[in-house]
Amino acid sequence: DIVKALLNEKLPDNGSTASCTWQGKTFVITAGPTREAIDPVRYISNHSSGKMGYALAQAAANTGAKVVLVSGPTQLATPKGVQRIDVETAEQMLTAVKQQLTDCDVFIGCAAVSDYRVENISEHKIKKEQNSEPPKLSLVQNPDILKTVAQSANGPFTVGFAAETQNLKENALSKLQRKQLHMIIANDVSESHQGFNSDQNSALILSKDSEQSLPTMSKHDMAIAVIDAIAKRYFDTSNRS
Amino acid sequence: DIVKALLNEKLPDNGSTASCTWQGKTFVITAGPTREAIDPVRYISNHSSGKMGYALAQAAANTGAKVVLVSGPTQLATPKGVQRIDVETAEQMLTAVKQQLTDCDVFIGCAAVSDYRVENISEHKIKKEQNSEPPKLSLVQNPDILKTVAQSANGPFTVGFAAETQNLKENALSKLQRKQLHMIIANDVSESHQGFNSDQNSALILSKDSEQSLPTMSKHDMAIAVIDAIAKRYFDTSNRS
Repeated sequence: DIVKALLNEKLPDNGSTASCTWQGKTFVITAGPTREAIDPVRYISNHSSGKMGYALAQAAANTGAKVVLVSGPTQLATPKGVQRIDVETAEQMLTAVKQQLTDCDVFIGCAAVSDYRVENISEHKIKKEQNSEPPKLSLVQNPDILKTVAQSANGPFTVGFAAETQNLKENALSKLQRKQLHMIIANDVSESHQGFNSDQNSALILSKDSEQSLPTMSKHDMAIAVIDAIAKRYFDTSNRS
Repeated sequence: DIVKALLNEKLPDNGSTASCTWQGKTFVITAGPTREAIDPVRYISNHSSGKMGYALAQAAANTGAKVVLVSGPTQLATPKGVQRIDVETAEQMLTAVKQQLTDCDVFIGCAAVSDYRVENISEHKIKKEQNSEPPKLSLVQNPDILKTVAQSANGPFTVGFAAETQNLKENALSKLQRKQLHMIIANDVSESHQGFNSDQNSALILSKDSEQSLPTMSKHDMAIAVIDAIAKRYFDTSNRS
């Protein structure tokens, strides 16, 4: 069929472009951290730099895909040919993602979304009172963007990331099944030379019935490998469940 | 005396260099936010960009001062001629500042130091458990760097900043007295066009018996005005209490 023909028409894999083509398909990719306000000046966030998500957006765009990048606060330039939507909180990210779902073939949730937000955001800066107890921060669970997308009717091919500091494979497989993802990319972020804020990464690409180990490489190269791995499963319709 | 002579030997005030000279004097300036870990990937921080502290470091260095900049995580380049020490947490910042106090004539606490840190930092990433209550974050008070410096024996001329969202002058004056500072620069950060992360600022410079209002101007120009205001009081020994 056409899809197979497209796959056979591979671009040369010179290490800087994915070997598949995604012409006519739309990717929605989330990237970066989210920030959850405590008060007008303080917030909870995480160490995600956004580099991996931006590299994925660039790699997908380079194969001809239309790419929408929904990004938390980062210091990165928008990849060429990519439409970028800036958000701050998890709730804003969910809203932006939902608006893109009507035209989305592949969703990659690469953002490090805050699992929790502060229950009552203080309108004014919380003052440090003398001789008083520090405030207790009550947290509430944020919406699960990845799960929402994966379980939406006629949803896209859904890829998640798992940043773990222990039990990498078990935690990632559990997340794959629990959220009904098509694929999950697992990173060990306890190793300082890779993951968050690093330019290098190694990963385990897991799906229901396959496992691919990627050695330490640049996030640029890893993005290409991930886009290729998605293509392999996406265009082999027998693998889509 | 020599100091008065130095003051009379003013550099031309062309709007880009402070009119005083600080040759032979040492500034220690803190800048940027601090980050307090929740677990290996999450943290509490604030919206400080570090721009004001970096501008102050540059302005002081331009008048001939030796400048040590103790900086939380920022995206800024080190100002020319300035020695920079990078830290992450409030406790690390205090340690670095204390090490510089033996040779410090003027201390400017411009960093937005986290008032609180998390009581028990989780060694591993906190997992979002299904159907369980969100964690409660227990906070403990961080050391007060500004107060520690102001109240140290033979301490430097100590300048603080007050970023307020309400009751600007009252809150700043209370901080000036409570921490026994020589001077405080008060900013209203509730106005979005100035303060945190902005390139513009307006401020109120307060000391025990004087008040100077600075209109909205670039942080570069404000830094020069602040360094000049410090000189006016520092070199007029009758104002030193």
